[in-house]
Amino acid sequence: MIASGRSAQRPLSDRLLRPQSIAIVGASANLKKNNSRPQRYLAKHGYAGEVYPINPAYETLFDERCYPNLTAVGAPVDHAYIMVPDQAVEGVIDDCIAAGVGCATIFTGGYAELGPEGRARQQRLVCRARTAGLRLLGPNSLGVVNTRLPMTLSANAVLERDSLPPGRFGLVSQSGSLIGALVSRGQARGIHFSTLVSVGNESDLSVGEVAEMLLDDPDTDVVSLFLETLRDRTALEAMARKADAIGKPVMAYVLGRSELGRSLAQSHTGALAGQAAVLDSFLQDLGVLRIELFESLVETPPLLVGRRKPAGQRVAVVTTTGGGGALVADHLGDRGLTVVRPPAKLRTMLAGHGLTVGETPVIDLTMAGTREETVDACLGTLLDDPEIDAVVMVVGSSSEFYPELAVKPLAKWAGAAKPLAAFLFPNAEESLTLLAEAGIAAFRTPEACADALNAYLRWGSPRSRKTQPLPAEALRLVEAQASAATLNERDALALFCALGISVAECHVMAPDGPAPTDLTYPVAAKVLSSGIAHKSDLGGVALDLRDETALTDAADRLRRIVADARPDVRLEGILVQPMVTGLGEVIAGVRIDPLAGPIVVAGVGGLLAEIYGDVSIRPAPVDPEVALAMLREVKGLAPLFGARGHPKGDVEALARAVAALSQLVAGDDPTVLEAEINPLVVLGEGDGAIAVDGWVRLAEEETPYD
Amino acid sequence: MIASGRSAQRPLSDRLLRPQSIAIVGASANLKKNNSRPQRYLAKHGYAGEVYPINPAYETLFDERCYPNLTAVGAPVDHAYIMVPDQAVEGVIDDCIAAGVGCATIFTGGYAELGPEGRARQQRLVCRARTAGLRLLGPNSLGVVNTRLPMTLSANAVLERDSLPPGRFGLVSQSGSLIGALVSRGQARGIHFSTLVSVGNESDLSVGEVAEMLLDDPDTDVVSLFLETLRDRTALEAMARKADAIGKPVMAYVLGRSELGRSLAQSHTGALAGQAAVLDSFLQDLGVLRIELFESLVETPPLLVGRRKPAGQRVAVVTTTGGGGALVADHLGDRGLTVVRPPAKLRTMLAGHGLTVGETPVIDLTMAGTREETVDACLGTLLDDPEIDAVVMVVGSSSEFYPELAVKPLAKWAGAAKPLAAFLFPNAEESLTLLAEAGIAAFRTPEACADALNAYLRWGSPRSRKTQPLPAEALRLVEAQASAATLNERDALALFCALGISVAECHVMAPDGPAPTDLTYPVAAKVLSSGIAHKSDLGGVALDLRDETALTDAADRLRRIVADARPDVRLEGILVQPMVTGLGEVIAGVRIDPLAGPIVVAGVGGLLAEIYGDVSIRPAPVDPEVALAMLREVKGLAPLFGARGHPKGDVEALARAVAALSQLVAGDDPTVLEAEINPLVVLGEGDGAIAVDGWVRLAEEETPYD
Repeated sequence: MIASGRSAQRPLSDRLLRPQSIAIVGASANLKKNNSRPQRYLAKHGYAGEVYPINPAYETLFDERCYPNLTAVGAPVDHAYIMVPDQAVEGVIDDCIAAGVGCATIFTGGYAELGPEGRARQQRLVCRARTAGLRLLGPNSLGVVNTRLPMTLSANAVLERDSLPPGRFGLVSQSGSLIGALVSRGQARGIHFSTLVSVGNESDLSVGEVAEMLLDDPDTDVVSLFLETLRDRTALEAMARKADAIGKPVMAYVLGRSELGRSLAQSHTGALAGQAAVLDSFLQDLGVLRIELFESLVETPPLLVGRRKPAGQRVAVVTTTGGGGALVADHLGDRGLTVVRPPAKLRTMLAGHGLTVGETPVIDLTMAGTREETVDACLGTLLDDPEIDAVVMVVGSSSEFYPELAVKPLAKWAGAAKPLAAFLFPNAEESLTLLAEAGIAAFRTPEACADALNAYLRWGSPRSRKTQPLPAEALRLVEAQASAATLNERDALALFCALGISVAECHVMAPDGPAPTDLTYPVAAKVLSSGIAHKSDLGGVALDLRDETALTDAADRLRRIVADARPDVRLEGILVQPMVTGLGEVIAGVRIDPLAGPIVVAGVGGLLAEIYGDVSIRPAPVDPEVALAMLREVKGLAPLFGARGHPKGDVEALARAVAALSQLVAGDDPTVLEAEINPLVVLGEGDGAIAVDGWVRLAEEETPYD
Repeated sequence: MIASGRSAQRPLSDRLLRPQSIAIVGASANLKKNNSRPQRYLAKHGYAGEVYPINPAYETLFDERCYPNLTAVGAPVDHAYIMVPDQAVEGVIDDCIAAGVGCATIFTGGYAELGPEGRARQQRLVCRARTAGLRLLGPNSLGVVNTRLPMTLSANAVLERDSLPPGRFGLVSQSGSLIGALVSRGQARGIHFSTLVSVGNESDLSVGEVAEMLLDDPDTDVVSLFLETLRDRTALEAMARKADAIGKPVMAYVLGRSELGRSLAQSHTGALAGQAAVLDSFLQDLGVLRIELFESLVETPPLLVGRRKPAGQRVAVVTTTGGGGALVADHLGDRGLTVVRPPAKLRTMLAGHGLTVGETPVIDLTMAGTREETVDACLGTLLDDPEIDAVVMVVGSSSEFYPELAVKPLAKWAGAAKPLAAFLFPNAEESLTLLAEAGIAAFRTPEACADALNAYLRWGSPRSRKTQPLPAEALRLVEAQASAATLNERDALALFCALGISVAECHVMAPDGPAPTDLTYPVAAKVLSSGIAHKSDLGGVALDLRDETALTDAADRLRRIVADARPDVRLEGILVQPMVTGLGEVIAGVRIDPLAGPIVVAGVGGLLAEIYGDVSIRPAPVDPEVALAMLREVKGLAPLFGARGHPKGDVEALARAVAALSQLVAGDDPTVLEAEINPLVVLGEGDGAIAVDGWVRLAEEETPYD
């Protein structure tokens, strides 16, 4: 322990997660108040460092000397936990700076989660701290628990427990109370955490930065995130790429399946709630595993310890109880994983044990196969099979009545190159704990078992996104526009064309001019105005005009519609295009998502696709190969890939167009905020894909010091 | 106990579930064999009736006299459990009949689940038993457990446990091993079953008939079903209607979310696997509650005891721990339930307790609201609110550390008119058990909590389906056709017309004839042949023909297509119809489902709807009101109801058409096996809906004694 000198010389991660000295500012003797907890919990769980309670109202507190303020301590403080009323927090921050405190966690609430005024006060705290080299966790943070030191700087009531065994799983959570739930649930199962951090409002230190500290922690094997929003995607991305580089798995649960959940996250955290689909694709693209069930937060980490990314998505399910095996397999199938049929080698091996198994995917050893040597040989054969990426063993009543016996043939595979998961069909707490101790992931429900395997089997490396400079002509077209402008359809198509995307032939009739002479009929006529975002809704589109008479009639009608319905906008002309028909229509869009940053979206064109939300999303940019993978994910585009006997479309050209579009928002300082091609008409194989309509919205020019 | 006389005089349900005397045919002393279990288990759990082990190889078995065969017993036997090898089962059935045994459960497997030959042998058993008044459970049945008598006639290893407390929940399962898992899991939670029955292959006694016995059982409050298939829908339907009449809830878990799960169910049971969506709609329509998670099988029954059907789908979520409340609310929202905002009355009441709660749907009392009197007043106010149908209380760490205190304010509401559910955020086994003992449904995961509430809040009464005789003209048209015929498009439309459905005007050109003279162009021309099911796939449809020349050209082309592509079929003519355009296209179909019987399906027309599976299903027939409810369930039809500013379609006419179509398959002896209108074109409000295309397949005529 450092006996003297400025504590700020220790690395931030040590001060935050492994402080040698702690000040609790606003500590209290009132057992009914949260403020009394951290000091008690630190003592209860055996923290060996210095603890300085700060409160001018006490001389001593729980038999420790109490200080009137931080400067009165007169010794280095690694980490201050601030629990004073909100109006006093700024003063304490000043004290921290004056006393050379290395980092501060703010428990106090009443900041960004309350709205703009609170957000401004929070920002003041951060500015004050940042400019003085003080880093902040919170506000609204329930604190930090390090079971290994141990160091329990938290007001979470879970620490009322008597014991807190050290573990090897890290958790960074935007919900403070979740930490308590997971410690409690994990402990009951023999699954223990190394370090748990409640990040609160993330005014300064964000999930990504804290999680990166856990990546560096040699006592942490797996890092879990509980997310309600995403406040610092850059830090999260850097962390995810580092996790991949060092081979440590990071998994995440994202709250907000429903609109309701998202609105709760918003009111709860004061942060923007992200669309679950956008956050999911952001995390997936970064190689962060995603779990969807609450209990998976406890049950999944053991499955991931020391694992490499899987080669495929093929699971073998072995069971001695038909019903339990069918339940797991049903959920695996429901998640699109492949449950393999018994390989020939396995069948031969089992025949040697006097067992015949059926041809169905679940490998049912029946009661005859409950012998240890049979289970052992079966698991060995499956884990050794290059066509299998993970194995599930479903254990029946023996796991309840003979835990030692039931667990034994499984435990030896803890160190296998591929993961073995166990689902215990009866209530079998002792077996669950024995398996956890042996390092085997064990699941209480078939749903969580399938959820964890699904997360693992979809685990990939972060994609590297290569931003390319926009072509000169595209840049010129963008720069010719006023900032924050919405481009009209013709200008948008010109920009898409400059990106290398095929676009429909465009002719512009002056608002009161004659029909162009060089047209190939039939044509479409549309109102051209950057002031009208949804011209179809207005009746501003006339299709399939067979000749000049039909065109001039339509143009007259369109002019009248705009004059009557939108006298506020300027009609810039009538856009005339030859009708383009293809095998299908696709919608492709890019935008800067407030949480996830630049994203690209592709889906089927038309109303139904919107209703079904059948789109694929990726952080932008994407290359044509990734764009093609996106298109394959869209169910409604299956016909374009030749499904159901449909003629194949030029999906490669489509992918190139999506990739080109994705560059628009991908630069460090994109001038385009949002753009959409709708529709991209897909022609037959080799014939291309043509952008027929679209729009572009430019970013506002940044005004410095705004 | 009846000392003499034929046991068959007791009711079947008593002999099956409450036998006074049991014979175990094929009992064994070999502890490694299943055959040794029932006798041991009956003794272990204190069965008070007579047990007669039957096996010519023993004089005595486990200190009881053993008999060489059933007739040697010389005393009445209520229930025989048959565990002999499959080739000996028929002989034992004969013995049962000869000895006047009341009912027999067959443990032995190797019947319908193995294929046609096994199915035939199974059928022989049933015929033999039935004609002699003997009822069978199984084959492949793990037996019957009655905890109240107690009577444990089963080979399920779960009975190795020392105690088996009596409970009040019944279970009828198509999976035998599931019974063990539920007894084990329930017991760990203080949730106990009254009677559990493994129905095996249901060769004779089916799920419905057995479940009806549990409805009659005064010791059973809730009946749960675990289904992999549906073998006797008539019995299930009768049971469900009786359940409604007596007000006892019946809930079901259906295995087979995935194709894989369905194929497993099929290989496992030898029965047809149903489409999950069809089974779901069948059960929902009968007022059977459906749960979707495995643990809900254990956790849901306490929520249902003594409940009436809910008035709406509005839940209040109260919490003292923000994160836990948000998790539950997110899952409730995801299932489409309404989570209510704090009512004014509640806010006033809480203000009196010094608490201000936010306007968000989750009612967060925070730590300040953990006092018993606050929780108590809050729950009372919410349960009393006519705008609220159920309440969830989320309990934080107090449920782990102070179970008695945490449970107390909840327990008193066990008898409330509306259900109160508890979700415990930490691991809190003791609280879970205390709540179970108090009769409060308590949940370990937010998912199961939402699942159970969802099942309860969608609980309705069985619909009464009124079959109407087909109009005389419709009957005439059907009877004019050969049996098993597929009607061509014109004949199908004529039949739909006879049902009162508007159909498109049809003109038939002879295969080599001239164009009809009285047409309004544009028209569509299609090949007319009952031999061609999918004329679009063949290119057999020409749309939007503007004049007679276009029509005769198209007709020539259609003739060539049929001659070239399908020389095997007779071209009956060219069907010519004026083009009909409307606001949308709907597909409506009816068929006799092999499991669920007559069903009617409605969805959006076109390829995408098929890809997304966006359809609504009901047992047929439906009346126009139910048909309208079906149409509302189809997401892709929302525009026809005026969503997103779309012009409203004549959905009432559409509903009448669907209702009329549904009568086609609904009679006791329907001659129509399958029919489809595709598309039904929907016009504007008041303008109707027009069937433009369709087909009908008639049933084969029944040959008696086939």
